[in-house]
Amino acid sequence: MTEQLPQDVIAQLTAMGPMITPELVQGSWALLTPFHEKAGYTAPKIDRDQRYGDHERHRLDVHTSGAGAGGDSGADNKAPVVLFVHGGGFTGGDKHVPGTPMYDHIGAWAVRNGWVGVTMTYRLAPGHTWPAGAQDVASAVQWVRDNVARYGGDPDRIVVAGHSAGCVHVASYLVGHGGGALDGVRGAGLLSGFYTIPDGDARSEIERPYFGDAPSATVSTLSGLLDAEVPLLFAVAQSDPPFSHGQVAGLTAAWFARHGSVPQVVWSDGHNHISQIGSIGVDDLALGAPLARFVNRVTAGA
Amino acid sequence: MTEQLPQDVIAQLTAMGPMITPELVQGSWALLTPFHEKAGYTAPKIDRDQRYGDHERHRLDVHTSGAGAGGDSGADNKAPVVLFVHGGGFTGGDKHVPGTPMYDHIGAWAVRNGWVGVTMTYRLAPGHTWPAGAQDVASAVQWVRDNVARYGGDPDRIVVAGHSAGCVHVASYLVGHGGGALDGVRGAGLLSGFYTIPDGDARSEIERPYFGDAPSATVSTLSGLLDAEVPLLFAVAQSDPPFSHGQVAGLTAAWFARHGSVPQVVWSDGHNHISQIGSIGVDDLALGAPLARFVNRVTAGA
Repeated sequence: MTEQLPQDVIAQLTAMGPMITPELVQGSWALLTPFHEKAGYTAPKIDRDQRYGDHERHRLDVHTSGAGAGGDSGADNKAPVVLFVHGGGFTGGDKHVPGTPMYDHIGAWAVRNGWVGVTMTYRLAPGHTWPAGAQDVASAVQWVRDNVARYGGDPDRIVVAGHSAGCVHVASYLVGHGGGALDGVRGAGLLSGFYTIPDGDARSEIERPYFGDAPSATVSTLSGLLDAEVPLLFAVAQSDPPFSHGQVAGLTAAWFARHGSVPQVVWSDGHNHISQIGSIGVDDLALGAPLARFVNRVTAGA
Repeated sequence: MTEQLPQDVIAQLTAMGPMITPELVQGSWALLTPFHEKAGYTAPKIDRDQRYGDHERHRLDVHTSGAGAGGDSGADNKAPVVLFVHGGGFTGGDKHVPGTPMYDHIGAWAVRNGWVGVTMTYRLAPGHTWPAGAQDVASAVQWVRDNVARYGGDPDRIVVAGHSAGCVHVASYLVGHGGGALDGVRGAGLLSGFYTIPDGDARSEIERPYFGDAPSATVSTLSGLLDAEVPLLFAVAQSDPPFSHGQVAGLTAAWFARHGSVPQVVWSDGHNHISQIGSIGVDDLALGAPLARFVNRVTAGA
């Protein structure tokens, strides 16, 4: 079953325009939340606030069917794992906002697909600057490697997905900024993030608290992603800001020059930067279904 | 219900590589046909070989539910219409290959979505050169405008979709090469076609029989498509040849320069040039479902 929102709701989302304002965030979630409440946005079992490091924000939630951990069964019986990294402009956001679908709905979607879902929180700027986010993704992946088997998850079949600033951290992890190996990681979903961080005055107020004055060539991930060790799925929302569309244009040109093909990009029909990630579970054609297909493809086989 | 092929079938398609050979065509359809036979690939009623012009190939088939034409009911009760234009390298192909799903499966898919499906044949090169294909699309659209109401279709809510050479003809029609208005056309699906026709020695053996020596600037559609009167959905298959990927790379760059956004491109996960269009009805996430969402969006409202 692929859930779909009514046309009039899509039209209201589209009418909000592309700029990521507090009104856009609030308005998008206000439209989507009733559909999440109707569909249900929590997995049968959520094991919250597992510690993957020493900092207060080194926490993750594990979402499962509750049907049992598999225990001594072989890896063949273990499920793929999706690790989700939230957005929030480097200075905010959380894996879980009580009383809302954020981002338990990603865990519930993972479980409905037969996987284990993991949602993580990470350290924030300005207190923690580049490459703290990438380091935290690497540490969370290592936690999954070490612990997910007892939840029925397969430590050798992990897909990491990040949205917005979380996508930037995932990309940074993939190209090695955070240290840590990619062992067990089968693919990554890079959802409405950015891969080229400009220098100097072109660096935005969103980027500066996290990247400081670190050189573009050091912190940008585009060239590294072109030779990523794992398959990548990119996404951009129809009403993402021009900046996000520009990232996809630059990515597409560089990828074609490198590979003679264009990268897999999901263009989330009808959605904005916020509703794109909120669409998972209630409007799956926009992103959830193609992302699920990608996860199934890259985790197929032992 | 969104149909999906098993992973091992996808893997076999992917293993065939990108080159469009007779083996690829035959092998792709051999893999897909059993799934079409199981799912059923014919609409309840097919009214074949309606004449939309004087030439022997000026024929189209109308696919409906057979539930009645609507008769005197208002336009509100009439269904969107999808007009499909087949591929075949400008010199071959047909709307209907008896005993196979080609391309009745597109008509059946349209009817399952609640629309009227129309599949058309057109004149071929080398006997008929540019802009004969665009003229034929224009004539078929006019036939739909004049006749589809008696099949329960809405002459004011038409979406035209073309694959490969058929996509080239649709693009050419959209930018005015074929004459004829776009009245009633609400959008277009441009599926694995090409929009820049090179000059001179760079013109391929596929292109030359149809375009002859007509200048690139005259026959290319890219710049016109950037200002198309109707919404466009583009598609490219994962295993489309590098040439097709290059078209999308060029399109994306030009579109971003013109609009500050990237165009809607469906990247058909796991598929090649042939299986992409064959996937409709048996692996809908690859193309059928996003194309259906597009049709519903652009035909919403009176």
